Amino acid sequence: MSSEGNTVIGLLGGGQLGRMLCEAANPLGIDIAILDEQNAPAKQAHNTNRHVLGSFKDPERIKELAARSDYLSVEIEHVDTEVLEEIEKNGVQVDTKDGVVTHRPPIHPSWKTIRLIQDKYLQKEHFKSSGKGIPIAEQIAIESGDGALDSLKEAGEKFGFPFMLKARKGSYDGRGNYKIDSEDDFEPAIKALGTLPLYAEKWAPFVKELAVMVIRTEDNDGNLRACVAYPAVETIHEDSICTKVFMPPREVSEEICEKARKLASEVISTLWGRGVFAVEMFLLDDDSLMINEVAPRPHNSGHYTIEAVPYMSQYQAQLHAVLDLPVPEKLIPRVQSSIMLNILGGAKPESHHNLSALARGHFDEDMDVYLHLYNKVSKPGRKIGHITLTGFCSIEELEAKAKPFIEMVDEIREERLGSTSETLRPTQESKSPTPAKSPEPVKRASYANAVKSDTTNHVQPEASETSEEEEVPSDKPLVLVTMGSDSDLPVLKAGLDILREFKVPYALDITSAHRTPKYMMRVADEAAGKGIKVIIAAAGGAAHLPGMISSETPLPVIGVPVKATHLDGIDSLLSIVQMPRGVPTATVGINNSTNAALLAIRILGSFVPEYQQAMKKYQIEMEEAVIVKGTKLREAGDLEYLEAMKSKK
Amino acid sequence: MSSEGNTVIGLLGGGQLGRMLCEAANPLGIDIAILDEQNAPAKQAHNTNRHVLGSFKDPERIKELAARSDYLSVEIEHVDTEVLEEIEKNGVQVDTKDGVVTHRPPIHPSWKTIRLIQDKYLQKEHFKSSGKGIPIAEQIAIESGDGALDSLKEAGEKFGFPFMLKARKGSYDGRGNYKIDSEDDFEPAIKALGTLPLYAEKWAPFVKELAVMVIRTEDNDGNLRACVAYPAVETIHEDSICTKVFMPPREVSEEICEKARKLASEVISTLWGRGVFAVEMFLLDDDSLMINEVAPRPHNSGHYTIEAVPYMSQYQAQLHAVLDLPVPEKLIPRVQSSIMLNILGGAKPESHHNLSALARGHFDEDMDVYLHLYNKVSKPGRKIGHITLTGFCSIEELEAKAKPFIEMVDEIREERLGSTSETLRPTQESKSPTPAKSPEPVKRASYANAVKSDTTNHVQPEASETSEEEEVPSDKPLVLVTMGSDSDLPVLKAGLDILREFKVPYALDITSAHRTPKYMMRVADEAAGKGIKVIIAAAGGAAHLPGMISSETPLPVIGVPVKATHLDGIDSLLSIVQMPRGVPTATVGINNSTNAALLAIRILGSFVPEYQQAMKKYQIEMEEAVIVKGTKLREAGDLEYLEAMKSKK
Repeated sequence: MSSEGNTVIGLLGGGQLGRMLCEAANPLGIDIAILDEQNAPAKQAHNTNRHVLGSFKDPERIKELAARSDYLSVEIEHVDTEVLEEIEKNGVQVDTKDGVVTHRPPIHPSWKTIRLIQDKYLQKEHFKSSGKGIPIAEQIAIESGDGALDSLKEAGEKFGFPFMLKARKGSYDGRGNYKIDSEDDFEPAIKALGTLPLYAEKWAPFVKELAVMVIRTEDNDGNLRACVAYPAVETIHEDSICTKVFMPPREVSEEICEKARKLASEVISTLWGRGVFAVEMFLLDDDSLMINEVAPRPHNSGHYTIEAVPYMSQYQAQLHAVLDLPVPEKLIPRVQSSIMLNILGGAKPESHHNLSALARGHFDEDMDVYLHLYNKVSKPGRKIGHITLTGFCSIEELEAKAKPFIEMVDEIREERLGSTSETLRPTQESKSPTPAKSPEPVKRASYANAVKSDTTNHVQPEASETSEEEEVPSDKPLVLVTMGSDSDLPVLKAGLDILREFKVPYALDITSAHRTPKYMMRVADEAAGKGIKVIIAAAGGAAHLPGMISSETPLPVIGVPVKATHLDGIDSLLSIVQMPRGVPTATVGINNSTNAALLAIRILGSFVPEYQQAMKKYQIEMEEAVIVKGTKLREAGDLEYLEAMKSKK
Repeated sequence: MSSEGNTVIGLLGGGQLGRMLCEAANPLGIDIAILDEQNAPAKQAHNTNRHVLGSFKDPERIKELAARSDYLSVEIEHVDTEVLEEIEKNGVQVDTKDGVVTHRPPIHPSWKTIRLIQDKYLQKEHFKSSGKGIPIAEQIAIESGDGALDSLKEAGEKFGFPFMLKARKGSYDGRGNYKIDSEDDFEPAIKALGTLPLYAEKWAPFVKELAVMVIRTEDNDGNLRACVAYPAVETIHEDSICTKVFMPPREVSEEICEKARKLASEVISTLWGRGVFAVEMFLLDDDSLMINEVAPRPHNSGHYTIEAVPYMSQYQAQLHAVLDLPVPEKLIPRVQSSIMLNILGGAKPESHHNLSALARGHFDEDMDVYLHLYNKVSKPGRKIGHITLTGFCSIEELEAKAKPFIEMVDEIREERLGSTSETLRPTQESKSPTPAKSPEPVKRASYANAVKSDTTNHVQPEASETSEEEEVPSDKPLVLVTMGSDSDLPVLKAGLDILREFKVPYALDITSAHRTPKYMMRVADEAAGKGIKVIIAAAGGAAHLPGMISSETPLPVIGVPVKATHLDGIDSLLSIVQMPRGVPTATVGINNSTNAALLAIRILGSFVPEYQQAMKKYQIEMEEAVIVKGTKLREAGDLEYLEAMKSKK
């Protein structure tokens, strides 16, 4: 499975968490195969021929990743756990020189953990029923359909008002939470949250949000070895996004921090599989803790560990845990204090540039500054990087030293909020009741369950730290299909169908060698620079187009001879195929645009494994189709078969 | 020049120094374009479409790199400074949508510095004549040819015996040093060092080797801004390779360390350009310092800065200096002590595995362990990684804690020396007179100028930390050229010449569709798995080979119709081109293997920029050749031209 003896971890998702995982893996000689889009942030920081192109939600691609990996892991919890379960149980079939073998890469964390965590209600029920005394907010599952109203009434009676109505699953993609102030909110809430499975949660006051990263190890039989907790941190959420992290938490006793670490370890000990986990919790006004939710992966609240626990950052810990390498018994930071500030895209693409520049040029005897950019296009509110400040001083002194950074982060936010209309940012509401324009740390009591904004009820916590939020860019064409005349288009239709079937992005044009010679030359000249990899050119009669295009481009040109009025296409064929030495065209059969498209896909497939895989599949299906026909022919005999063929036409 | 607004540094060479530069660049959002072989260690840690495939000694490739970079820098000093000088003076021509423009990326450090450093004699003469009182060993240039013997006599008279005879240039590739014990050594020394320019150096006693990394900044007009020195370190060389680095140096006073830093800054202030520089020096028995040599780049003796000066490692400093970003005024380590141990390939490929495992599992409250693997194939004596230990204790205490690591490193060395015959390791001799089997730190006086071993006189200091020592792996074939019969080979010759001209690695075979059908199917079936990207298949008559191959592979297949005995090749052409829908062949003209090869190269070129560049060049040359002919024809007229054509034949 591995190249040059390196162990390969297949990772579902390639956002910034995957990128930082790769940054940790590079010096350790660990290979990470990423399943995500072509230019995913993680793929940029690690070059391997094992990356898989495609969606981390596509079962076929996940299996392809499994086939080339020694271990499987996830960057994000919103994955298809059915396929992970299937891979664990049945393995994947891998072609080797000794024939097809079943390959079963260990999956960490377990799909059981991921599946549990995907349902927020079940997740908390699990913690409640663990018998470990894990504190969670009281909750009631809400019946779907006609029973919903009755369930809501029951919740109102049990919890009083306000209480929270939440979707159990998939809160990452825009569906979310609804604050119920009175019975009048029941119907609009049900309408807003639609047919999603829901639950109601008691409203709880909190003074701070804390988080603890935990490394969970177990042996290969699933027996827990250890849960080791990182220091507790204070997290600040603004507009539903984690923006700042303080280590240690400000004005929180060491005793409470220790309690938080122990609680986090207890919580994670109830789950399955190896890896690092984030435990988000609330510190209530009576100094008690309440578990909010768990993420089964490295987490924004653990970025600070890269510099603060440099010998075992959360990313190295994820690698060590998944691969069952040693992890420390204690995780003691090597700095006294640390502040992590997310760099969120501002109103303009360059809004954060002053902040990066500040980070690059700020040197202080008691504070070090570390810039992390994710190489993502800046968009308002998007997580495009972070800055970690480490202190050889107390957290209060570090916060004072960090003032220029915090002020700049807040200015970028204010500018963004000022410039963005509400309708453009449906996911940007306050998780705490802090007013949008007052980003100071909240000292007064706030509420654990967040929030109904005036305009929408969507909350998108944390999703943006993974690849989840990335839009797939509209694919740039890889193939240019051009023709001498629109009368060639019907012949090209079959080939274009093939390109569509194989999901090859293509561009179309009409470039007549004889009627638009200059334009044809320009198109040919510019194609390579535009990222085109193959040109298909169709022409009939004195079919000069493919050869002329070829003379102006370094790209491979596939010529499709189109049968013209006379000579049955032989004129077109010979015009295209008999090119002089020096200027090749790849000629296919007369009118055979299907083969032109298939040839283009084979060319792409030599360098893009996904296309080669698809081609293999196509060839197998073609073989199977003929075998089926053969069976039918053997069974039916020639006369009946011919009859059936006629009736089909 | 840059993608998504990132600044691009073009780097000549992609060994482990380039790899660690990429590791530093990734989180900073800096793009590094590497000029080196396909799988160079640096290319693995940074994924960009700007890498250039080829040798960093190839002027054309260097210009190609310059064209796609905002800045140019070097990983290694053994580069062609002529081409760097030319690029600085005349720039490179870049095609843009607004036409061809001249692009002049700043080059740091300056080619002047690199050229000076390439000549060890001139380097030291430069320091001597700088007027800054830089201490160097006395030296005399040795005349070449007949005068050599007289020069050597002069040196003997001036320096006494022993003294060192050294090559001025290129000591990295196996040529080196000769210790002259008496006049009897003159002739063998001249014979051994051949026609290289030489110099003689006075023998000097030293107790330790020290090194200091220095960041040099200057403005864009070449005015020095600052030289900032890292802490002084002690370097241990064994078998001419740096193996261990101690920070701070053991049993050296702080006063001497400060003196070393000041001296190093003085030395580097006399050079040109921005970047980090290594200054290697000797501590003599009278506590004075003597400059040995300078490397104009990050250096093995500075690896420890990654963890010990984490806010500005030597790699980040290289990036900041080259790009003219801020650098600190002081470089204070964040740990009390540090030891760097090189991982050198042992007797067996797995000899170092126990060492890596030790590094992965060793946790200590006062010592952190950092493993760095370079993803290189292990070979005896090759630098394949390093381990940095950082201490929250004194260097003596750290050395005690590091004992298991040091012992294991020494065991690997002993096993390697024991198993390797002298003839197999011409570059492995002791730079200090420490016996090979006694790796304890040298306390007794040794000699500054190194060394004649009993068997050879080659010294290869430091070259192995860059890509320099890497052998280019024999390229795996990208194109398979196969034919139905060896009678097709003469037709294929022209195409094979093209593949050779374009340096495309190819494999050859004979696979007859009718005489070796099973073998043909197997070859077709296995090609993609072997890394083949394109298949060229030639056949004549009932030319089934290309189509049959195509039916068994997902790769693009180019068919060459070979003219057979009858029908003038039309039988071959139609057999190849008129394939059924579903199974494409890319058909070229009858007997036109030239175009088959060019088409294969265009296909490769769509994904390997080097081949596309070469194709563009080929097309331009073809155009020029025809224009020249046209000129001749216009000048000579048809009759004279025809006459000339005849006489050519």
